[in-house]
Amino acid sequence: MGSDERYWLGFDLGGTKMMATVFDAGFKIIGSQRTKTKGCEGAKDVLDRIIKTIKDAADDAHIKAQHLGAIGIGCPGPLDLDRGIILEAPNLGWKNVTLKDTLEKEFGCPTVIANDVDAGTYGEYRFGAGQKARCVVGIFPGTGIGGACIYEGRIFRGRTGSCMEIGHVCVQPGGRVCGCGQRGCLETVASRLAISAEAAAAAYRGEAPHLLELAGTDLSSIKSGVLAKAVAADPVIERIVRNAAQHLGGAIANVVNLLAPDVVILGGGLVEAMSDLFVGEARKTVDCRAMKSFTKSLKIVAAQLGDNATVMGAAALAAEGKAKE
Amino acid sequence: MGSDERYWLGFDLGGTKMMATVFDAGFKIIGSQRTKTKGCEGAKDVLDRIIKTIKDAADDAHIKAQHLGAIGIGCPGPLDLDRGIILEAPNLGWKNVTLKDTLEKEFGCPTVIANDVDAGTYGEYRFGAGQKARCVVGIFPGTGIGGACIYEGRIFRGRTGSCMEIGHVCVQPGGRVCGCGQRGCLETVASRLAISAEAAAAAYRGEAPHLLELAGTDLSSIKSGVLAKAVAADPVIERIVRNAAQHLGGAIANVVNLLAPDVVILGGGLVEAMSDLFVGEARKTVDCRAMKSFTKSLKIVAAQLGDNATVMGAAALAAEGKAKE
Repeated sequence: MGSDERYWLGFDLGGTKMMATVFDAGFKIIGSQRTKTKGCEGAKDVLDRIIKTIKDAADDAHIKAQHLGAIGIGCPGPLDLDRGIILEAPNLGWKNVTLKDTLEKEFGCPTVIANDVDAGTYGEYRFGAGQKARCVVGIFPGTGIGGACIYEGRIFRGRTGSCMEIGHVCVQPGGRVCGCGQRGCLETVASRLAISAEAAAAAYRGEAPHLLELAGTDLSSIKSGVLAKAVAADPVIERIVRNAAQHLGGAIANVVNLLAPDVVILGGGLVEAMSDLFVGEARKTVDCRAMKSFTKSLKIVAAQLGDNATVMGAAALAAEGKAKE
Repeated sequence: MGSDERYWLGFDLGGTKMMATVFDAGFKIIGSQRTKTKGCEGAKDVLDRIIKTIKDAADDAHIKAQHLGAIGIGCPGPLDLDRGIILEAPNLGWKNVTLKDTLEKEFGCPTVIANDVDAGTYGEYRFGAGQKARCVVGIFPGTGIGGACIYEGRIFRGRTGSCMEIGHVCVQPGGRVCGCGQRGCLETVASRLAISAEAAAAAYRGEAPHLLELAGTDLSSIKSGVLAKAVAADPVIERIVRNAAQHLGGAIANVVNLLAPDVVILGGGLVEAMSDLFVGEARKTVDCRAMKSFTKSLKIVAAQLGDNATVMGAAALAAEGKAKE
């Protein structure tokens, strides 16, 4: 391969694991590497691990790291996008991690950072379920519920960076207390964590014998795959998940009434494990609750890229940023 | 004045009245004309009246109509923006009104149409309370509640034209039935119509003697000015209006969590008549319910341009469209 050929690197910096993927000029995956994040060991250690993971991914792709044309990193926020700094990642105990500077010094190529949900939704827009749509909304229920919007090919941003906090749209006035301090946020009824908590209570009450046998009543054991199995076996768990998906649909209806998107993409492990249920219930609720003129040709679909969405989106953002230079 | 000087015309086509305003190249008002819309007399008649009103406004500005550089019209929707057609205005009984073609033929200058709330918010962005902001949300409670968003200098649009239907964001799940067929929409609790209905009921029950004396119990008599007077005299009316403003604040909190705007502008006759109350209550509720990182430097302000917002915004859109040619 000639040294004038270009490669892009996409990076997904998650709370528990990190992944680096190398793409060729046509965005075909040619190499990749994963490792644990171990955020508790401190930012310096994590930066070293990021560098090593990138080098290993380049090795896996049989290219030299210095042939990378640009690096894009999807990160937990809040971020300083211009300076390429993670301002804070409370779950990981980081403050002011200078990602852009460190990686540009190490690899000598432009590096951009993006909010991980923004990057994932951008990935689906460029290569997955939202291709060529004028307005794409991505929603990813997990521990919380992340959201993003790609409007006319660009990430819709708030004043300070990311926005689209659909997890904190109020769906139950006076409802359960949320981590953000408010009440009745979508996250309190439709995140994987909220579903797991309700499911664990049902298991504890003896109403969900299959779930109890599969995972007990510890929330940390009640993951998406377990919930999907329990949905098929315990009617009460099916009701709990369906109810959550309806709440999700209600919040989506509000987003649709405001933004009138072309496509709403539902992603993340929970949706992946039960995509028919989530997409189906969300669809029904949105058709019922949003304005007809906005729902007529609205698509609600499952994400297509799975774990690759963030690395693909981050790499594309980096490549296009470079193209603009 | 030389015939090479440029003038812009902004037009506000409302359900009850229409207004044409002529601006000089620097967007100073130099002439204007108002008349009744009389939509019931049919689209042809209204088109003739629009043409006459534009000519009268040009006369008032002491210019010839053929010196108009461009015409911008704020209209009730839904619209076909590209073809410049009002597809339907149910309240006025119109269908497929070919505004753009008719006016371009008559005046020989480019004509653009825009949703009236979009045009009004764009006016506030260019000349009023939202100048230079990166993201402006405009909210106008009236019979319904109109909303619009100007993002990085451009109107945020849905697939089919307008969007930002904040009046149909759900704020009371299972609440009152809305004109759109849903329940608990913001319009059912915070529009001028909803407030007037609640106020009329209070007057009927004998709890609002001042309102009863001022306006009786007929909704069509309980307008913004009357409500403002009653708020000062009847404590129950004050509670009703304050409660509506809090619901408005709750819906704004959801919009803030999604779009993280720099400025939220509240306008329309109702807000104008009681701007301290509306802006104050909305502010308190938003500070309480939206994410801190988004509310910190968020401004919530009253509109500055009053009835001129739509004509100014429409004229600016037309002028800038022309500039792009």
